[in-house]
Amino acid sequence: MDLGMTERVRPLVAAVRRMVEDEIAPADRAYHAEVGRHPSGDRFRLTDRQREILEELKATAKARGLWNFWLTDSERGLGLTTVEYAYLAEEMGKVPLAAEVFNCNAPDTGNMEVLERYGADWMKDRWLAPLLAGEIRSAYVMSEPEVASSDAAQLAFAARREGDGYVLNGDKYWISGAGDPRCAVYILLACTDPEAEKHRRHTMFVLDADTPGVEVLRPMTVFGADDAPHGHMHLRFTDVRVPAENVVLGEGRGFEVAQGRLGPGRIHHCMRAIGQAEKALAMMCGRGLAREAFGKPLAELGANYDKIADARMEIEMARLLCLKAAWVMDTEGTRAAAPWISQIKVVAPLMAGRVIDEAMQMHGGSGISQDFDLAHMWTHVRTLRFADGPDAVHRRQVARWELKRHAG
Amino acid sequence: MDLGMTERVRPLVAAVRRMVEDEIAPADRAYHAEVGRHPSGDRFRLTDRQREILEELKATAKARGLWNFWLTDSERGLGLTTVEYAYLAEEMGKVPLAAEVFNCNAPDTGNMEVLERYGADWMKDRWLAPLLAGEIRSAYVMSEPEVASSDAAQLAFAARREGDGYVLNGDKYWISGAGDPRCAVYILLACTDPEAEKHRRHTMFVLDADTPGVEVLRPMTVFGADDAPHGHMHLRFTDVRVPAENVVLGEGRGFEVAQGRLGPGRIHHCMRAIGQAEKALAMMCGRGLAREAFGKPLAELGANYDKIADARMEIEMARLLCLKAAWVMDTEGTRAAAPWISQIKVVAPLMAGRVIDEAMQMHGGSGISQDFDLAHMWTHVRTLRFADGPDAVHRRQVARWELKRHAG
Amino acid sequence: MDLGMTERVRPLVAAVRRMVEDEIAPADRAYHAEVGRHPSGDRFRLTDRQREILEELKATAKARGLWNFWLTDSERGLGLTTVEYAYLAEEMGKVPLAAEVFNCNAPDTGNMEVLERYGADWMKDRWLAPLLAGEIRSAYVMSEPEVASSDAAQLAFAARREGDGYVLNGDKYWISGAGDPRCAVYILLACTDPEAEKHRRHTMFVLDADTPGVEVLRPMTVFGADDAPHGHMHLRFTDVRVPAENVVLGEGRGFEVAQGRLGPGRIHHCMRAIGQAEKALAMMCGRGLAREAFGKPLAELGANYDKIADARMEIEMARLLCLKAAWVMDTEGTRAAAPWISQIKVVAPLMAGRVIDEAMQMHGGSGISQDFDLAHMWTHVRTLRFADGPDAVHRRQVARWELKRHAG
Amino acid sequence: MDLGMTERVRPLVAAVRRMVEDEIAPADRAYHAEVGRHPSGDRFRLTDRQREILEELKATAKARGLWNFWLTDSERGLGLTTVEYAYLAEEMGKVPLAAEVFNCNAPDTGNMEVLERYGADWMKDRWLAPLLAGEIRSAYVMSEPEVASSDAAQLAFAARREGDGYVLNGDKYWISGAGDPRCAVYILLACTDPEAEKHRRHTMFVLDADTPGVEVLRPMTVFGADDAPHGHMHLRFTDVRVPAENVVLGEGRGFEVAQGRLGPGRIHHCMRAIGQAEKALAMMCGRGLAREAFGKPLAELGANYDKIADARMEIEMARLLCLKAAWVMDTEGTRAAAPWISQIKVVAPLMAGRVIDEAMQMHGGSGISQDFDLAHMWTHVRTLRFADGPDAVHRRQVARWELKRHAG
Repeated sequence: MDLGMTERVRPLVAAVRRMVEDEIAPADRAYHAEVGRHPSGDRFRLTDRQREILEELKATAKARGLWNFWLTDSERGLGLTTVEYAYLAEEMGKVPLAAEVFNCNAPDTGNMEVLERYGADWMKDRWLAPLLAGEIRSAYVMSEPEVASSDAAQLAFAARREGDGYVLNGDKYWISGAGDPRCAVYILLACTDPEAEKHRRHTMFVLDADTPGVEVLRPMTVFGADDAPHGHMHLRFTDVRVPAENVVLGEGRGFEVAQGRLGPGRIHHCMRAIGQAEKALAMMCGRGLAREAFGKPLAELGANYDKIADARMEIEMARLLCLKAAWVMDTEGTRAAAPWISQIKVVAPLMAGRVIDEAMQMHGGSGISQDFDLAHMWTHVRTLRFADGPDAVHRRQVARWELKRHAG
Repeated sequence: MDLGMTERVRPLVAAVRRMVEDEIAPADRAYHAEVGRHPSGDRFRLTDRQREILEELKATAKARGLWNFWLTDSERGLGLTTVEYAYLAEEMGKVPLAAEVFNCNAPDTGNMEVLERYGADWMKDRWLAPLLAGEIRSAYVMSEPEVASSDAAQLAFAARREGDGYVLNGDKYWISGAGDPRCAVYILLACTDPEAEKHRRHTMFVLDADTPGVEVLRPMTVFGADDAPHGHMHLRFTDVRVPAENVVLGEGRGFEVAQGRLGPGRIHHCMRAIGQAEKALAMMCGRGLAREAFGKPLAELGANYDKIADARMEIEMARLLCLKAAWVMDTEGTRAAAPWISQIKVVAPLMAGRVIDEAMQMHGGSGISQDFDLAHMWTHVRTLRFADGPDAVHRRQVARWELKRHAG
Repeated sequence: MDLGMTERVRPLVAAVRRMVEDEIAPADRAYHAEVGRHPSGDRFRLTDRQREILEELKATAKARGLWNFWLTDSERGLGLTTVEYAYLAEEMGKVPLAAEVFNCNAPDTGNMEVLERYGADWMKDRWLAPLLAGEIRSAYVMSEPEVASSDAAQLAFAARREGDGYVLNGDKYWISGAGDPRCAVYILLACTDPEAEKHRRHTMFVLDADTPGVEVLRPMTVFGADDAPHGHMHLRFTDVRVPAENVVLGEGRGFEVAQGRLGPGRIHHCMRAIGQAEKALAMMCGRGLAREAFGKPLAELGANYDKIADARMEIEMARLLCLKAAWVMDTEGTRAAAPWISQIKVVAPLMAGRVIDEAMQMHGGSGISQDFDLAHMWTHVRTLRFADGPDAVHRRQVARWELKRHAG
Repeated sequence: MDLGMTERVRPLVAAVRRMVEDEIAPADRAYHAEVGRHPSGDRFRLTDRQREILEELKATAKARGLWNFWLTDSERGLGLTTVEYAYLAEEMGKVPLAAEVFNCNAPDTGNMEVLERYGADWMKDRWLAPLLAGEIRSAYVMSEPEVASSDAAQLAFAARREGDGYVLNGDKYWISGAGDPRCAVYILLACTDPEAEKHRRHTMFVLDADTPGVEVLRPMTVFGADDAPHGHMHLRFTDVRVPAENVVLGEGRGFEVAQGRLGPGRIHHCMRAIGQAEKALAMMCGRGLAREAFGKPLAELGANYDKIADARMEIEMARLLCLKAAWVMDTEGTRAAAPWISQIKVVAPLMAGRVIDEAMQMHGGSGISQDFDLAHMWTHVRTLRFADGPDAVHRRQVARWELKRHAG
């Protein structure tokens, strides 16, 4: 069970770390400062400067061979293992724009994986190729406002068979990335047979984002922020027609596709969260050493030693667990990794949230302000406690696996 | 130690609760929907509609005798005890605009208290009277960006004696309410003698907000939000001249004023936080009963019973501790109440934060979105862990009092 | 809602505190040093010295009028309110023997309450009178080894009607106080009709401890200790005959009696736990000031300030909640107090356990040894998380009450 | 960073697990049932039956080649890595007697390590050889009652130079294993020069346990238990004469020896604690499935799913961190491993304590009684929070390492 950095990935990690710190971090600030400056006033339209910043970085990354790391088992990627990729994801987690620069951003990686594993050849040509090239972006369209989407069997958004295709109707929300003007394709789960057996009710579709009848109602806000231009959109579908060939894998097999999609993405999310926790701990130490009160550096006051120590220990443990989940995925596959992925999905965002919270506290009021990245980091990892299943659902899964081992 | 609602305050609590629920809550939504609609685009200028909403509510409250509840020991107020007021503060905490409607908003109440206790008669005429009438608003100008302001002895913003007055220079930040166009007066702590004994270095000033040389640099953001039009502003003072008569109580007595100011305000903050926790628990239960997953109401799934029970127990305990702090203040005064106030200042915001966080989690992704008040409630109570002293400073105080009891 | 010490109870509290500290604490050490010294080697037989120590203290207490405080609503006691008694219970919690000295020990108080409220006159003459006089002791015989006794409907110990009486068969365990040779009477819950409606299946009996067929199998140990001579015994009943007149209140009404019994006793347990927490905090501070490491008193090292502060805050909150529960019982009765009692039953033992645990840690290895009372205090409060219902059952109750308030 | 089980160790782990479950567990119960049955009544003297049980098991283990696993870098042992050994330690943690059966018990392993690394040849012949053969046992004599021994520089037990030897005077306590009649040798830290530089004050001695002047005052108790016949003894040394040749490594080099000794032992302790946590989780699941209340298995009630899931996640993380610490020790040595060892020393006992505590709670009152191993497991892991440095000292170390990384 080798959880260490391989010789192969070590120089990649170094290159990514350097590029994130030296090039992407400053560019990220410039990019986000542009939000809202589009002449239309629309925060979800990219300014020329934004496109320029992004495309330059992507070109640089590509030129350096730092591209599509996530393609673990494909000949088209670098063929890294999930463990190797995890170390890269940690580095990419430290700056919001970083993952996109290396074409390793969510939800695109998961969507590309769906297309690669389950997509027809024409789907690969039409959508996978430009996604791999970083020319377009995508969204994964699953959650619905009217039901607890954590129990996916309840999802009611309807795809009605009609002629040689389907007609889609309903609302979907928290569709991350659907705000981005470059978002060109949706992978969408719809209910095709509400009477079927629980795991055969739904079907996965691929469709162009500009299919007639699709409407972006509003961005959902995260603690008040719209995350423009990425965005977490509330979409409405009104009589949207999709040809039958756009079905992935087959009618009624939506859950199968969804299951296959979620494993690696959750590992990536968790490793990025760990990257954020490391960054927060570094900031906490830095501030604790730099500021004084009552004649001493903050770090030496009160329980701050303990808080720093706890942060270090929690980060180490969460990282090792993520690496183990990645290793199980590499060696035994997605199904075997599922209990491990549920574990890290609970553990990593909670841990990162705690560490960032303590780092904010060490910064005083500034910690929650625009002067430091901590507030945004915190709200981001807080969303991870809902994304891809809330904590409660994953804990339930872990408990059931455990009890099964001890039952008769 | 009667911590219950008195007969006198019971009808007031009922009236406030009713007005908050039926009139202020809907008005609050309308008011905040107006932010950013001023023709100038300036989010910190009130639209006519905003003024109208607010003034109508205030007139109604005044007409009903629901005004200036906080004036515990004055003939001008209702003469309520702090315990009685605490029950009203809890109700006012449930909607952001509520405290202002009853002229019980921070930081005005604390500032009015300063003027009432320590202000010269001309100060009372000029600033206290219109504040009590709800005609102007005020700010308390203390924290500085360059030092850990929790150790107030470090505050370096300078007031240099010159002729018959002082010249003020420096930056202050997190000045809550200073964004509001109606904010007309500042209570400001400045360093008049950096060489003096630690608690004699600073002096409290009162000055008009539009004194020449005062500049609003920017709003500090709270997890990305500018809290317009209230605002937490970063101010810059450049050669601002203030007459010597604007000193409160006397040069070098700034700490004395600051101490006297902080007691009741902290109790109010805490009781409002408890009101928010109650609201969050009600929302958590409501959602837990209304939504289903895996064939059951969410409330019956996983650890939700325990979470609801823990929330109820934590709220009850925090409320009782706040009421006891209020009772000590009523019966033994501010100095005796200090250890109790430090206790609730740690306990109440942490508790409210936990309860609101669980309520968010019960709501799924919606919980952190604009569709519910929870996200804003959470960020607000998070700021309370910095405001009026961070947790660490209050824990330190509590520990020192405790150890003193057991020393020799 | 007056939760303070009344004028009436204040001198009693002072007298009890003094007697506990000055007389009972040293006697307690002498008493427990005697355990195992009975010539028979039987740890559950009292030595003459033990009887002497105990009877002298009891005589002194009685002579001072410090006796039967718990009799809140009786003419035979002092007629204290539950709130008043709570302050006394806190003091009595500080030394194991104290409650018995004032005839306020568990399970006798609860048993006396049963006899007083529900007992026939002959029962009062035979058992209540000597219990009130401190001449005999009693046990409450409820838990069974074969079922989760927290769901009392499952209790299967059988009482079969036969002739003019009942025949009892089965095992009962964790019968506290049944080891004491002075334990003369049992209040016992048995199943008289397993087919009846859930809350009508059981019947409460009173019977002499030496009724033929009752056998003490063994003492249950608490983290290895047998708590001799009090003891938590495993009893076996084999064809034990009890006359029908020994039924309390009526066949099938056992639950009703059990409910009425449990309220006040839980408050007493909790207040005694709070007394132990106070004692532990005092010890933690004392040790923290007295010992040094790395050139400083332990209290100033690491997170110890925070731990002391947290202990202080948690104790205050738990005490206030207990007092509120007591006040609700005084003013609205047992049924209304039930949700409050469930709350404190969860909160107080957990809190006391945490405080004692931190106090042990501050003492280094000595903290868990015979050199300090902390280890025994900890194991005792740990048992309270099972006694009279485990935490989980009380949390469940609290949650159900809460949800009921918010349902339709 | 291979943290998995190697092919080499896999069969050993299986053999140890089988022997622990099938042979040692029942023998352990028989062995401990014998305590106190020595005709002398002395709980610290072994009965013939005890010797027989132990020696038979040891002979079996030896015959199977399951012996001295811990000798990682010696030609005399199996030459396992620390990572490999860790998996064995986990299995041995599940039953108290197990480690001794395989001659891997504390404090002997650490003491043998001292002798092997730093001992003179005659010391090896005299004490190491019989220790390796399991013929004698040993104690590590360090902690003192009068000072906070976590700051070892304070240790004051005096070794005064006199003639060709030293004279030892003072008290030592918590000397684990010194109760065992087979304990033949002490490794002892004494202060030889209180005026020297902090880390040069102390010297390590080896001496026979029966050296004249050594007195066993009493066993220290752990939550009331004396852990006979192993025992944690309070020793008194009165004018004990030791030849100069019994000094290990040289006068003033005691700290150096102590440092080298502690690394591996802490890893072993932690892995054994993890073994206990695994056992507790298995018991928690077993009980949760076997018992019912309110019509459901306990496991499905309340927050039990979450508790089981949390236990699983915490165990996995703590184990991985221990394995990483072991791996650092294997690849980079004791000094490099120190920060990792401090981390696991905090994490593993705390985690095991929490898991065992929840397992006790799932068992109801039985959980803390003699009917299950949980109570003893809990008190044992609680002692680990003091042994080899209290949590606070290790957290302090972790924080200092972390801050050093971020300082200028």
